[in-house]
Amino acid sequence: MQHWTVYLSGEIHSDWRQQLEAGIEKYKLPITFTSAVTHHENSDAAGDSLGKEDNQFWRDHKSAKVNAIRTKTLLESCDIAVVRFGDKYKQWNAAFDAGFLAALGTPYITLHDENIIHPLKEVDGAAMAWAQSPDQVVEILKYVTSK
Amino acid sequence: MQHWTVYLSGEIHSDWRQQLEAGIEKYKLPITFTSAVTHHENSDAAGDSLGKEDNQFWRDHKSAKVNAIRTKTLLESCDIAVVRFGDKYKQWNAAFDAGFLAALGTPYITLHDENIIHPLKEVDGAAMAWAQSPDQVVEILKYVTSK
Amino acid sequence: MQHWTVYLSGEIHSDWRQQLEAGIEKYKLPITFTSAVTHHENSDAAGDSLGKEDNQFWRDHKSAKVNAIRTKTLLESCDIAVVRFGDKYKQWNAAFDAGFLAALGTPYITLHDENIIHPLKEVDGAAMAWAQSPDQVVEILKYVTSK
Amino acid sequence: MQHWTVYLSGEIHSDWRQQLEAGIEKYKLPITFTSAVTHHENSDAAGDSLGKEDNQFWRDHKSAKVNAIRTKTLLESCDIAVVRFGDKYKQWNAAFDAGFLAALGTPYITLHDENIIHPLKEVDGAAMAWAQSPDQVVEILKYVTSK
Amino acid sequence: MQHWTVYLSGEIHSDWRQQLEAGIEKYKLPITFTSAVTHHENSDAAGDSLGKEDNQFWRDHKSAKVNAIRTKTLLESCDIAVVRFGDKYKQWNAAFDAGFLAALGTPYITLHDENIIHPLKEVDGAAMAWAQSPDQVVEILKYVTSK
Amino acid sequence: MQHWTVYLSGEIHSDWRQQLEAGIEKYKLPITFTSAVTHHENSDAAGDSLGKEDNQFWRDHKSAKVNAIRTKTLLESCDIAVVRFGDKYKQWNAAFDAGFLAALGTPYITLHDENIIHPLKEVDGAAMAWAQSPDQVVEILKYVTSK
Amino acid sequence: MQHWTVYLSGEIHSDWRQQLEAGIEKYKLPITFTSAVTHHENSDAAGDSLGKEDNQFWRDHKSAKVNAIRTKTLLESCDIAVVRFGDKYKQWNAAFDAGFLAALGTPYITLHDENIIHPLKEVDGAAMAWAQSPDQVVEILKYVTSK
Amino acid sequence: MQHWTVYLSGEIHSDWRQQLEAGIEKYKLPITFTSAVTHHENSDAAGDSLGKEDNQFWRDHKSAKVNAIRTKTLLESCDIAVVRFGDKYKQWNAAFDAGFLAALGTPYITLHDENIIHPLKEVDGAAMAWAQSPDQVVEILKYVTSK
Repeated sequence: MQHWTVYLSGEIHSDWRQQLEAGIEKYKLPITFTSAVTHHENSDAAGDSLGKEDNQFWRDHKSAKVNAIRTKTLLESCDIAVVRFGDKYKQWNAAFDAGFLAALGTPYITLHDENIIHPLKEVDGAAMAWAQSPDQVVEILKYVTSK
Repeated sequence: MQHWTVYLSGEIHSDWRQQLEAGIEKYKLPITFTSAVTHHENSDAAGDSLGKEDNQFWRDHKSAKVNAIRTKTLLESCDIAVVRFGDKYKQWNAAFDAGFLAALGTPYITLHDENIIHPLKEVDGAAMAWAQSPDQVVEILKYVTSK
Repeated sequence: MQHWTVYLSGEIHSDWRQQLEAGIEKYKLPITFTSAVTHHENSDAAGDSLGKEDNQFWRDHKSAKVNAIRTKTLLESCDIAVVRFGDKYKQWNAAFDAGFLAALGTPYITLHDENIIHPLKEVDGAAMAWAQSPDQVVEILKYVTSK
Repeated sequence: MQHWTVYLSGEIHSDWRQQLEAGIEKYKLPITFTSAVTHHENSDAAGDSLGKEDNQFWRDHKSAKVNAIRTKTLLESCDIAVVRFGDKYKQWNAAFDAGFLAALGTPYITLHDENIIHPLKEVDGAAMAWAQSPDQVVEILKYVTSK
Repeated sequence: MQHWTVYLSGEIHSDWRQQLEAGIEKYKLPITFTSAVTHHENSDAAGDSLGKEDNQFWRDHKSAKVNAIRTKTLLESCDIAVVRFGDKYKQWNAAFDAGFLAALGTPYITLHDENIIHPLKEVDGAAMAWAQSPDQVVEILKYVTSK
Repeated sequence: MQHWTVYLSGEIHSDWRQQLEAGIEKYKLPITFTSAVTHHENSDAAGDSLGKEDNQFWRDHKSAKVNAIRTKTLLESCDIAVVRFGDKYKQWNAAFDAGFLAALGTPYITLHDENIIHPLKEVDGAAMAWAQSPDQVVEILKYVTSK
Repeated sequence: MQHWTVYLSGEIHSDWRQQLEAGIEKYKLPITFTSAVTHHENSDAAGDSLGKEDNQFWRDHKSAKVNAIRTKTLLESCDIAVVRFGDKYKQWNAAFDAGFLAALGTPYITLHDENIIHPLKEVDGAAMAWAQSPDQVVEILKYVTSK
Repeated sequence: MQHWTVYLSGEIHSDWRQQLEAGIEKYKLPITFTSAVTHHENSDAAGDSLGKEDNQFWRDHKSAKVNAIRTKTLLESCDIAVVRFGDKYKQWNAAFDAGFLAALGTPYITLHDENIIHPLKEVDGAAMAWAQSPDQVVEILKYVTSK
């Protein structure tokens, strides 16, 4: 294991991904991050090129499946994942990813504030670590991937 | 396949489970339902018999893991699942179960109202059917398990 | 192995299933047959109870997925399968089932006339036997499941 | 995931493969295409070097198996597949590949005209996307494999 | 899941197995316990019927493998396991069983005193619960297997 | 584990199977034996009902595959196997079964005389026990399946 | 798939391996061959460095297991295998390898003369091709690995 | 297989790892060693950056899980492992690793003195070789990874 692939799942409206990127650059960690497409509008429109849909359910359905071509493959090929829960939106896709990883036996770290411990107890129960800040995640990744 | 095991995941504060039970009884379907422990207080206290914890995170953690002994086993052994999203709470455990089932390749049906189509698009994208009422779920189960 | 489950895939417009049933009854073979729902109109309408669709693609899509809840589970749990190709229709679902079984490593027998040997060569190439009549299938099942 | 392997299955008598190649070259996508041997006569004769057969079934059988050494390995190692159905021939091998991919859980995209939606409903039901032109496939692959 | 199989691993010189048996009998839990052969001398002599060995390593080797025919099969088929560490002997076989279960993804409960928390931290880290008395294990099993 | 399935592979020209049957009957062991069809002529003719072949290779091929429908299923579903090597014939099918079991991780016991230890060293190397008489096999099975 | 790994199993007393090497060099095929250690005396002595054994069974056992560290890993990681049966020795290890590959679903080609078709029928029944000369194997590999 | 990854598990208070490194350097073997973090204090403190714990069990728990992110991944991706038991401490983590490897089917070599043969009989029973000195391990690795 000379190089690790770490999948970043969840919140797309804050800069936690950038903070992690900065952290691994700072320490020159042997890590490549992978992720869903994080541009919100593009992601919602992922299936539009296959033909427009009048019905909202089918538009979402087509886009969700096109996105899943990418995310399923990346989830299955990562070594570790970080699953981030912010304070907005339902974020069921992040919990879905956590369940997917748990079933595969892939270790993941959750990243969230203390005030949502209780609703996340099942997600945290299957996690290998709970971090409250991107810095803590960087510390863990630095330790885990050290020579 | 003479008999089917169907896992019921999600909302514990409405009577959808009872409606499904009534439905399969009415049609005498060859189905056994399985489920997490659905008594809210008991579920939160599942780990208390192993010693009290001062720290909320660890109390939740112990209980989540005791619950997972049951749910992981039942999720892995069911033939089909129904995952219900209601209009209260975060319900990340239901989305977690859906992701777990998706990774195992176990077919699941979602049950939720039209107003949460968009935040559930990834969960619905990996589902085999979306129902809006328990009656619809009963119809599908009746069809699927017919002789 | 006291009892065998044999999945019957393919053609629904001739009586080959009935001939196989008669054959195992005649010899009292320890076999249970499983199958997709073989009533053509019901199968096409499998998803209609979840709400009507204007668009033909989505109507078919919903029904195909509801049918797959049943067929995927039965394909994964059978010990042996018989895949029948008749002389009408495209029958891509039968070839799809054969590929599914091949990937699972489940042995299957093809049942078809001599005049379609060439287009079926990949499907036959992964099969354990090629039969030209239901009687031959019964003979093979009788031999395979003998005490 | 820096590079993706995409298996191209189905029709060998039109230039859809070339159009896809042109598309990924144009956008410099990080994709390698794999495929069965697409030279029709060579493919039919794949087993001839092992000795001639008088019987057509066995000639086809030998060739089908030699081809499967290649296709099975490539199907199992691809990240994504595109399965193309044209308007000629039985094309059961394409449906067989789709079933094989479905059982492996490998995401695939179907490529076919609107007029064969109904007979392909099971194949489309397990697909992640349905495209009607090579250009649409290129768009999806571009999106899915973007940085 | 109407009935659960629980494998009991570890210490054979105290009566913890009997206490668990009494517990499930008291509450009429739907549980069957499985176990290695727990008669110490018989276990050490398990391979002797295949011919005596002069060399202690090979005598142990033969017996260990005969025992593994049983334990490997039971470990692979249990739903839950309890792994007990007492205060005597090396007990590497109990830790070996725990690692085996962890790799299979089978949930296990450890049962040991507080004074060996530190050397058991990896074994506890992969466990779903840590109990300090057989009574606590019975409580957990009662909860987990409840209707 | 209340009942064990034990597959008997190899030699069909001596009465070792009968001796094992007598042994488990004597001790009333909770064991069911499974096996290939052991009638030599029937086994060689297993594919004949599908049409006669002039070419010996294809006749053998058809029969081998029909037999494999049975043996592959039974090998995959047994808990333990006994693989017997006698002093006649090539017996490559027995060694093939042993390799198949080794890859599945299913424990097997070899049964053969001392004079073929060297050529069987790879087969014995992956076995859980080597017995020289049916009585020894019965002893091992009695021990392994004891309450 | 730019490069293929092909495991060569069986006979070590003729030059078939060298002929295959020459063939792939001639055509510059994208293939790497892997193999057990083929030096007979070294292979028999593989475990001797761990201490001498008086008993022939245990000497063979130790060596067989040391060899299996290599062969098991190479068998599991190859894309294709060639299994060669010559006219000397028992060659049970070659049949064992074939069974191992069959269980893994790895395609293999057998290489043997016509006079041993019958005893090899099970081994050939699970093979993807039967070749009678190294040249034929080279032809097949050339075809299978072509661009 | 041009290069092998060998995981080193167990004892961290003697220089056996350094001796193995020296050995593979001497013979220029195509091997990369992987390992848990072997600095004792750092390993015990692996989870401290996520927040201090008053309770010893939870401090150990957090650190054990952070360490497992690394070790689980490395155990699952190694080709071979060496598991070392010294004469100090409980070393349950080494036995746990051995059980984990056994369940995965990954070959491992044990390294320990003769005086602990009996308590290690289950661990040795599932091993491919038992060595008493680092030099012996180097010899085995040299043989196994030879061209």
